[in-house]
Amino acid sequence: MKKISILGSTGSIGTQTLDVVAMHPDSFEIDGLAAGGNTALLLEQVRRFKPRRVSVASLELADDIRPQLPAGVELYSGDEGLVQIAAGGDADYLVTAVMGSVGLRSTLAAIEAGRDIGLANKETLVTAGHLVTELARRKGVNLLPIDSEHSAIFQCLNGENVEDIASITLTASGGSFRDLTREQLQGVTVEDALRHPNWAMGAKITIDSATMVNKGLEVIEAHWLFGLPYEQINVLLHPESIIHSFVEFRDSSIIAQLGNPDMRVPIQYALTYPRRLESPAQRLSLAQAGRLTFREMDFARYPALKLAIECGKAGGTATTAFNAANEVAVARFLRRDIPFVRIEEILEKVLERHTPESHPDLEQIEECDRAARELAQTL
Amino acid sequence: MKKISILGSTGSIGTQTLDVVAMHPDSFEIDGLAAGGNTALLLEQVRRFKPRRVSVASLELADDIRPQLPAGVELYSGDEGLVQIAAGGDADYLVTAVMGSVGLRSTLAAIEAGRDIGLANKETLVTAGHLVTELARRKGVNLLPIDSEHSAIFQCLNGENVEDIASITLTASGGSFRDLTREQLQGVTVEDALRHPNWAMGAKITIDSATMVNKGLEVIEAHWLFGLPYEQINVLLHPESIIHSFVEFRDSSIIAQLGNPDMRVPIQYALTYPRRLESPAQRLSLAQAGRLTFREMDFARYPALKLAIECGKAGGTATTAFNAANEVAVARFLRRDIPFVRIEEILEKVLERHTPESHPDLEQIEECDRAARELAQTL
Repeated sequence: MKKISILGSTGSIGTQTLDVVAMHPDSFEIDGLAAGGNTALLLEQVRRFKPRRVSVASLELADDIRPQLPAGVELYSGDEGLVQIAAGGDADYLVTAVMGSVGLRSTLAAIEAGRDIGLANKETLVTAGHLVTELARRKGVNLLPIDSEHSAIFQCLNGENVEDIASITLTASGGSFRDLTREQLQGVTVEDALRHPNWAMGAKITIDSATMVNKGLEVIEAHWLFGLPYEQINVLLHPESIIHSFVEFRDSSIIAQLGNPDMRVPIQYALTYPRRLESPAQRLSLAQAGRLTFREMDFARYPALKLAIECGKAGGTATTAFNAANEVAVARFLRRDIPFVRIEEILEKVLERHTPESHPDLEQIEECDRAARELAQTL
Repeated sequence: MKKISILGSTGSIGTQTLDVVAMHPDSFEIDGLAAGGNTALLLEQVRRFKPRRVSVASLELADDIRPQLPAGVELYSGDEGLVQIAAGGDADYLVTAVMGSVGLRSTLAAIEAGRDIGLANKETLVTAGHLVTELARRKGVNLLPIDSEHSAIFQCLNGENVEDIASITLTASGGSFRDLTREQLQGVTVEDALRHPNWAMGAKITIDSATMVNKGLEVIEAHWLFGLPYEQINVLLHPESIIHSFVEFRDSSIIAQLGNPDMRVPIQYALTYPRRLESPAQRLSLAQAGRLTFREMDFARYPALKLAIECGKAGGTATTAFNAANEVAVARFLRRDIPFVRIEEILEKVLERHTPESHPDLEQIEECDRAARELAQTL
């Protein structure tokens, strides 16, 4: 029986993690749940999964729900609440499914407490990959990827030696605007952007897919998760999102992971690794799919991807600044403050003005994050 | 340093095995080589790879080459010669690359001698799968598949649990006549049949691809190699032969092995497992391939595949009879004794008249093999 806590239990990954837990009541139980402002859903989850500890975004929200909590459930709030759910209690596994760099401190606390991490929050590694992976190594903690691409690579590396890897390739659907030229991107709306062709996901990651920032963050995440230089990490356009990613070994053999797009599969694998359990996910019929298509990534069409990889290669705080600027720019687009193409312009301008510091500590990272957000807000 | 002996060193798999050995002189050396009648090539191989023991098909051929062999090289011939190369000397690894059921006794002798087997001779498992796998288990000997499809499955099972397998799927190009209807098959020639769309292989296996008998033999081989019931073994048409085969696990996740068609890759993997070494095989570019296509296997179009699987399910000597009849029928087609479609008719007639014995011993298998050959010769 694995005792699981979840940061971001009411979001897309959080709710699907609870779906997986509900399907395997003999394998998993819930210790703690941290949500943001969706207290109605959190209370429903509390009734169903009986966590011993919950947290919400603010003191006010905590006061709101306190009367409705069963007796004995510990209640926390804010950043300190995240840390309490991540590192307190007696869970042995943490799923970090909050969006953005807010997950960093709590993830570090969970690793410090010796908990294995199911990592759905890619910004954690993008923002402070060297701190997180170094601490995980030191504490002997497993970082199990939940992103479908990284889960695919992780599955393809089963029983293999890292030294035998020639390269890894992350596949990219191309996002909601993949059939538009850069000129046609000028007038797109929030509604257009949120229509992802293959995956039903949260708003931020759907926008990140349209700008290809998401793939850039994934490249950086892969660099840290698998300890590979950027030269060994490729990106390939694969509109059907059936091959979720693949590894090429030095004997030219390629191992790929495939399936219908369904996040419950990588979530479950992160919880059951190295074993697998039954899943209600719809089985893939390649005969029914008929064909899979591929084309080279077009870096001119997706300048934000190129910029992300450049930041990765620059190292230090460059990826922190990139991620922080992107979070602000996407939020501004979602509240209709800026047009879609301004997201990329903001990223470029923030990075132009950024002087990367190498080997930053947590304080330097948080300062960089804050400064990049402030700047991105004004551009 | 792995000491390797090869049965069938002058054939397609044999020469490619020696290519692999030549590329990695620090990893492999050759102990014994058994060839059939191509003594010119065998002598060339002897000069280059310096085996201590060689064998040819007959006493006459042995007498022919004796004067040209370097001093100290032991010379054998015939069936006894195969056994000597397979089980004598001090090799620690045997590649069985002879075609047909002739490889059976020598393979059993090698397993008895405790040697790991690189298995390119699928007829061995088709003819006597229960004897071979049982003996290998008892002797703690590894059976490492060299067929590209089985190597693919084997690679996809790396680090996984057999109990987590939902099914395996062998891909099939469709062979040289895949675009012809059954009516159009009537008049095809030997030359037409030998033009395989993707793989350069020996004549027999190329004909077996055109009848889909090859895939049938592979299904039976997979049943024995991976210990799976026939219900968990599927076949899928995939004209490009890029996905060499795949495994679906019970969580719906699919792991596939891909690459350009190049037998040196599975051969090398069987020799280096669980590690991988560099290979000169051309690397696969999925962007360049552009697309992969798939369609359901058409069992009405390929009745011999259906029959093979029925034989597999019937068990006992049914697969022995199927394989023996096929070897004779293909040989008759290749010497222009019968038309192409007669191959399938012979298989059906031989199996109609066959009464399977369950759990046959080696003598019963050899008797069944002989009787099926005799009958197939007359139909």
